Formats: sequence, C-alpha cells, structure tokens
Amino acid sequence: MNDKERPQPETSAGATALSLRRVAIDTYQENVAFMHRHCETYRAEGFRALNKVRVRAEQRQVYAVLNVVDDEAIVGPDEIGLSEQAFDQLELEPGARAEVSHAETPASMDAVRRKIGGARLNEADFRAITRDIADNRYSRMEMAAFLVATGESGLDREEILHLTRAMTASGQHLHWDERQVVDKHCIGGIPGNRTSMLIVPIVAAHGMLMPKTSSRAITSPAGTADTMEMLAEVNLTPQQMHEVVRREHGCLAWGGRARLAPVDDKLISVERPLGIDSPGQMVASILSKKLAAGSTHLLIDIPVGPTAKVRHMNAALHLRKLFEYIGDRLGIYLEVIITDGSQPIGCGVGPALEARDILRVLENDPEAPNDLRQKALRLAGRILEFHADVRGGYGYDIARDILESGRALEKMKRLIRAQGAREGDLAPGRRSTEIAATESGFVAAIDNQQINRIASLAGAPGDRRAGVDLLCKLGDAVTAGDPLYRIHAEYSADFEFAVARAREYSGYRIGDHPPHRTGFSEF
Amino acid sequence: MNDKERPQPETSAGATALSLRRVAIDTYQENVAFMHRHCETYRAEGFRALNKVRVRAEQRQVYAVLNVVDDEAIVGPDEIGLSEQAFDQLELEPGARAEVSHAETPASMDAVRRKIGGARLNEADFRAITRDIADNRYSRMEMAAFLVATGESGLDREEILHLTRAMTASGQHLHWDERQVVDKHCIGGIPGNRTSMLIVPIVAAHGMLMPKTSSRAITSPAGTADTMEMLAEVNLTPQQMHEVVRREHGCLAWGGRARLAPVDDKLISVERPLGIDSPGQMVASILSKKLAAGSTHLLIDIPVGPTAKVRHMNAALHLRKLFEYIGDRLGIYLEVIITDGSQPIGCGVGPALEARDILRVLENDPEAPNDLRQKALRLAGRILEFHADVRGGYGYDIARDILESGRALEKMKRLIRAQGAREGDLAPGRRSTEIAATESGFVAAIDNQQINRIASLAGAPGDRRAGVDLLCKLGDAVTAGDPLYRIHAEYSADFEFAVARAREYSGYRIGDHPPHRTGFSEF
Repeated sequence: MNDKERPQPETSAGATALSLRRVAIDTYQENVAFMHRHCETYRAEGFRALNKVRVRAEQRQVYAVLNVVDDEAIVGPDEIGLSEQAFDQLELEPGARAEVSHAETPASMDAVRRKIGGARLNEADFRAITRDIADNRYSRMEMAAFLVATGESGLDREEILHLTRAMTASGQHLHWDERQVVDKHCIGGIPGNRTSMLIVPIVAAHGMLMPKTSSRAITSPAGTADTMEMLAEVNLTPQQMHEVVRREHGCLAWGGRARLAPVDDKLISVERPLGIDSPGQMVASILSKKLAAGSTHLLIDIPVGPTAKVRHMNAALHLRKLFEYIGDRLGIYLEVIITDGSQPIGCGVGPALEARDILRVLENDPEAPNDLRQKALRLAGRILEFHADVRGGYGYDIARDILESGRALEKMKRLIRAQGAREGDLAPGRRSTEIAATESGFVAAIDNQQINRIASLAGAPGDRRAGVDLLCKLGDAVTAGDPLYRIHAEYSADFEFAVARAREYSGYRIGDHPPHRTGFSEF
Repeated sequence: MNDKERPQPETSAGATALSLRRVAIDTYQENVAFMHRHCETYRAEGFRALNKVRVRAEQRQVYAVLNVVDDEAIVGPDEIGLSEQAFDQLELEPGARAEVSHAETPASMDAVRRKIGGARLNEADFRAITRDIADNRYSRMEMAAFLVATGESGLDREEILHLTRAMTASGQHLHWDERQVVDKHCIGGIPGNRTSMLIVPIVAAHGMLMPKTSSRAITSPAGTADTMEMLAEVNLTPQQMHEVVRREHGCLAWGGRARLAPVDDKLISVERPLGIDSPGQMVASILSKKLAAGSTHLLIDIPVGPTAKVRHMNAALHLRKLFEYIGDRLGIYLEVIITDGSQPIGCGVGPALEARDILRVLENDPEAPNDLRQKALRLAGRILEFHADVRGGYGYDIARDILESGRALEKMKRLIRAQGAREGDLAPGRRSTEIAATESGFVAAIDNQQINRIASLAGAPGDRRAGVDLLCKLGDAVTAGDPLYRIHAEYSADFEFAVARAREYSGYRIGDHPPHRTGFSEF
C-alpha cells in the first residue's frame, strides 16, 4: 500500500461527523435516514444505489434507507436526519455526533438468493436471516423477496421447523414455571370472531393458566388487543403480565410490548399488504410466538370457507398436519380444530362493536350473538379438556356452566381490574348508515373480506368506534329494502370511503333459498 | 340505503380538499406522500395499513406510499405533500387542490400471487402487470414480489415472450424508417468493457445505421451513457437523436430521455439492490428495450467467467437459446457471442478513466489497452457482417482498417460535435493511492465484482473522476509490493470507504503460475 498520497482519515474523526437530528416523519416499518444533497461530509448521491446506510453514534447503530433532501428546514448540510422510528431505536439525544457508512447487502441475502434458485436452506441459514431482519438490515424489498421465495411450496417441513426455531430464537421469552400453560390461536381472516375474550375468562375461572398475548390489527378491522383495549389496559410489560396471571390465572395482553417475535412483526408488515400468507410461514409465525410466550398446550382454530383464508377442506387438513408435525417436534401439545368460516362470527366488526358482543355473551344477554357464544364454548371446552381431570367430551358442559353461572363475567371483571380498567364507553361512531338488501330472498353468502374491508375503511381499528354491525346472517330471510348491516364511523372522510365501497358491492349475496350449511367440523 | 343520517359528502367537494405541496425530499424510485398526523380532512392513520394512497388533483393522479408527519414545517394539517419525483409527475403548481383516497392493491397483483403459487401467466396478465407498474401502482415491495416470483425457473419461454411484448408495449418507440438498424448489447457485470464507444464509430464510419441508446450505471461504476457524457451531451430527445443519426449514421445517447422502457427502469431499480437477475427477466428487459429502440439486427455479448454474471458455459448456452427463441419470435435478427468474462476489459473503471482508455484506442496510442481494442474490433466485425455486402469472416479486417486509418476517431469527433461537445478534461480524481501485491507470483484471478465495488465506493459514476485504474491483468508477473491498481476519488469520505474495502480484500489473487486462459469463444 502506497500511503504517500493518502489524506488524513477525516471521516473516522469526530471533527467531520454529522449532527444527529430527529425528523418528525413516521415512516412506519421502514427506517429512513435523511441527508442533505450538499452534505458537508459525505457525497449523498454516493450512498443511494446501495439502498441502505448504517448510521453510527456512540457505539450504537441503525440501518436505514437513505433519502436525499434539498431543504435545510428538514436537514442541514451538517446534519443526518432519522425518521421517528429509526431515531428512537438509537436512544440518543438530537445533536449526538453520528457517522454514516455504506450498509452492505446483509450476508444472509445470499441464502435468500439460493432459495429463489430452488435450494434447500438449513437452520444456520434461517438463523442468519432472522438475525439480520431483527437487526433491521433487511429493506422491505428484501423481506418481500424472502417471503415470496419461501412462500407457497417454497419450504419443506424441515425448513419450516428451522424457520420456526430461528424465529423463536430471535425474540424474548416468557417463563411461567407451571406444568401446563394453555393457549389458543385462530389463523384469522374472519370478521368479528373475538372468541379469545370469552375463552380466557372461562378457562381461567376453571383455574387453568391461560396468559393470552394477542396482536393488534394490521390490515384487519380489529385484533383481540384492540378490542380488549376498549375495556382494559393491554400494553403490559412482562412483569405486569406476570402479576396479573399470578393473581387471576389469565390475562388478555398485547404481545408487542413483550417483544416475543420481533422478526414476525416485521415480516407480517410486508406480508399483509402483499396479500401472501403461505402455510409454512403461517405455521412458523404462530408456533414461534406461542413457544416464546411459554405455552405448553395449544388449540389452533382453522376456519374454512369460500372467503376465509383457507378455502377448502383439503387445504385445512394439509395445514393441520403441518401444525401437528412442527408442534410435535418442538414439544408443544397441540390440537387443531377446523371450524365454519363461511361468514363473520358475532355481529360487530370493529373494536367497540365487538366488545359489546362479548359483554352481551358474558352477561347471558338474550340479544347476545349465539354463533359467537357457541363457538367460544366449544373452543373453551376443548381447552378445558387439556386438563387431566376433565373427561373427554365434558369440556363443553363445564364451559357452559362457567358462562351461565356468571363466573366467566366475574373473571372478566377481575381481569379488567387487574390489567387496569378503561372507560368502557362502547357507543359506536356517530355517523352511520344502513346498507339494504336490493332483492328479496335468503342471505346466501357473506363475503368476509369485503366486510373486513368496509369496516377498515370506516376507520377500524384506529378509530375504535368505527366498524360494521351485521343485522342479518347466512340463511336469514330478507325483503328488498331490509337493512343488512350498519356502517359506523366518526370521521367524515372515512365514512364516505366505507359507504362508497359498500354501495359498490355490499358483500352480501341474496339467493332463492338458504345456503346448504356445512356447519362446524371438529377433529 | 338509509340516507337519513348520511352527512354531506364533504370529501368530494373542493372545500375540504388539501393544498398540494412539494416536499424537497428525493425518494428516488418510490413515490412518497406526506400527510400531517392531525390532517384536517383525513385521518392519516387510516391510510397507512394499505400502503399506498392515490393523490388526485385537476384530473391528474399519482400513487404514493404515505408517510405520516408530525412537523408543520414539512406539511401542515391542510396540506398534502409529495416527494420531488411524485410532485413532478403531477405537473401542477404548489397550492393546487388535491384529494386523497385509498389506493387499492393493484388488480394485477392477483396474477403475481397466482405466479407465486406456481401458475402460468398469459399475455393479458403480463400486460396488466406492466401497465400497473408503469402507472406507479406497484410499491417496491410489490415489484420485488413480482421479480422473485418470476425469477430463476419461474418463467417458461412463452411467458418470457409475453413479458417481453408487454414491456415493449409499455414505453415509447423510436422509428428509423430504414431497412437495417444495427445494435449491440452486453449483459453487463464486467468492469471497464466500454466497447460500444468504439463499435459505434467504427460501424457508423462504414455507413451502417447504429443509433445506440445506453443506460446510466445503477449499481455499477459506469454505464456507457456516463462514460460518453465525459465527452459529449447524452441527454438527447428523440428528435435530437434523429438529427444526429441522420447526419452521422450513429449516436451514443442515454436511453432514459426517450422513455423506451419505463417499466424496465423501475424493475431494475429493485432488481439490482436485491442482486437478482434471472435469465427470463434479462432477456425480456434487453429485447424489449431494443425493440422499442427500433433495432432490426442485434449482437448480444455474454461474458462468462468465475465472477461474471454468467459463470458457466452451460448457463451461457442456455441464455443464448433463450435470446434466440424470443428474438426470432419478435422478428429481430439476433446473434449471440460468448466472450471471456474472467477479468475487467481495459484498464480504467469509472467514467473518466474509461473515456481515457477509449480515446487511446481510437488514437491508436501504443498505451491503449489491447484487450479492449481486440474485443471492440471482434464485436464491430460481427456487426459489420450483418451488412449483406460483407463476406462472413471479413468484418474484423474492415473494422481494424477503419480504426487504424483514423476514420473511427474522426467519426467519434463528429458524433461528439453533433451531440454537443463537453469539456473533455479526463484527469482522474485528486485523491489516489495504489494497492500493492502482498506476495510475488502471477496474477491468477481478478474479482470483477470487487473491482466494481471499490470503484463504486470511490464515487463512480456520480463522481465522474473516481474509479479504479488497473495496472496488472491476468497472467502478469508481480513482485510483492508492486502496485496492482490505483484508486482515484475526489471526496475524502468516498476515498476512505474505497481504500478500506480494498485493504480488506484487493480482489486480486496471486498464484504460482499464470492462469489457464480459456480465451475468446465465438459462436
């Protein structure tokens, strides 16, 4: 190396480092760095083709996509800006001295490219990929490449096992120090269907340990965490969860605070908008979260229906085998139940409306939606049968007894108090309109996806009072002009979006006779 | 529909529309819209999960990813901001009244999901996909999903044909009204290798029509357009190109201005950072551009080598068949030549250094790199043989005669004048250092990718004087301490990045004996 002409290494000296600035832009799941086009230290254009930069300050670092800025009001030539999320990850004050360097394509992208080429990956590959994703080294584009390459038939069973293990290893774990920790999970896609908020009080009232962590909605109108938040605090630390569970044998908390599955959260934020959701990724996502949450016994609910995530019984059976195979190898006791996913469960879709349905069931209100009540009792019954002392087939009766006696409602009140009660005003959004049947006959089909879409457009879950309230279900006789459902919203623009969508296509099909009902399948 | 409670449709009225603002952030290939978190008209959070919004003003519209802003200095609650690129697409003044709505996932993403599931797509699918990409309806994530799903073995020959036709249809076309319009294309990946700037003057001097449109570098240290721009204007309108070509029979212009392949440009901006480059996409990308450019006769150069894009002769032959199959069906006369891609061609890597090499060859300078000269003569010879009057095997001699007689240099000077001469100062970057051999022996291997990487880090092509100047090539005898190459840069940070990378791994392997040379393969 001929060093004669080599200038002083200015960039590694503090003298030329940039001043860190928080740019008040919320870039959601992608870290973004902002550099002025005429930056004093770096040639901003030089970073661009490579897509990511590494910003380092005081021994900490974040990876971010670089945007070049032409306005000193956003970042000056002596500054490096970070979007809100990226800035928060550094946990530093504005003005800290920061250096920027090229972020190489993460090394594990080689494995992704091998996968695209049809290769089989081993556990070390999956661990490297999940580690790089956890460290924010993957752009959303790169995550999309990984998801597509491993989507559909892209992963064999062993690879799914590797991926599940790698995802479990990427996050924090909860430990309950109990022989039996029960849990349930529905693969999703059915509007309403908020059974967990009934099952947890029933099962916990029976004395079994059911510390339930749930997600918030990503593209659906409500997650269990969103609906529970109508009644109680859900943003619990692992410490707070432990306290609630020790006292009440259960909880209904948001899982995000516990950082059980940081990689899964990032992947889902790409997967959902892309609309890809392959069996392998679904199994790895669900089981890695349940393992991290410390579950020992798990009931999986797979709804099947023409507009559900799983549309045919064959696909449901394939998925069930996959859950069983991976669950057995990871030492989790797992049962899969295949349910009727041909229409929404309950009437309300959206946090406030769903919470109303749940309270009605708990209160044994005659207006409570019976399909929600029945489904919750059946699932709770199966979980109760995980207990060695409950004879097979008797779980349902025990669950019903707990519900009808008011012990489930009592347990729910105790859970709400333990987690921290919230206002509990469940009045739906002020703006509302009814969507009516355009012909007479019987409700022959309800499109789950369209109902979800309309409730989302109306503002759910961000606007907690927004959503859809179903007034008719499958098989109901209707006359032209009868209301099928009511749309609720708080904000005028959201209301317009939802009503326009519902007018275009209501999601209901009216036929000459009631549909042939396949009913509830249990295995 | 019960309209009693329905409020006035405020959002479709101009009264509540937002004021359009240009946000001076260059988000490169992705359109971004900026909305204040407390926007007066819309609930900003409501748009987020869906990933894209449509901003409409005065009958025009753009699709953009939404970022939520918490700083009125960037956008106010009554404004909708657009990144520089997105704003320019609308071609409106700031302050125009704009409405925002949910951008649905583009309908053609259904076809992409079918492709992920293993389905075969038809021409209508590919046309819908390319149309949606051209309209900026695809996010970068969605483009990544398309690229991965159609990558590697994901497309059969008929699908590649459909994709090529769809991409050709997506852009503008050039028409030359001539029986024979010749062109060449190298699939890329080899540093230096700037043969087009020698071939065009030779072929045009022979009177054949060669209107060459080239790309700028995306992740490589220079494209032909970047290097030609050292000497002449390349940013020509189709009209200007026609004038130059009518007068001189050739041109060396940047293809971007003519908008020949808007979809390809967008896909490449995702493909390159992901490092995926499948045969099907490559063939569709290259042939759609050449068809749009009006070429009738085309020579394709496929370099093969351990660090080239194509690493084995079998893969090169497969790619050649694919080019031939698609080319024949699209009615383009096409020949493929497989060349030695085991090392860089020429000495300079980066716009100024490459331009210097080219001028030396044109000037018959004894210091001109002979490998660049030989390769250009062979390729030019094959193109000359496209002419009915040139007997097979005689093209090389004619090309050499045109070069040695000075007619090629004369033609290049005329092309530069016709396109508009630029300064032409080719002095390399002020900062420079030499990377030396650490042992004695023979240069046994040169890593094309590492040389490209070092030249890019040094600043090429954005910094036109930056790059790498090779002092040894394969087979050269070296003694420990001898310089292998020189790094040039203008900016201190870039210089540091490049030198650090070269010190980590020079890209050169020194062995005990010269490598076995496979030489030049022609077919």
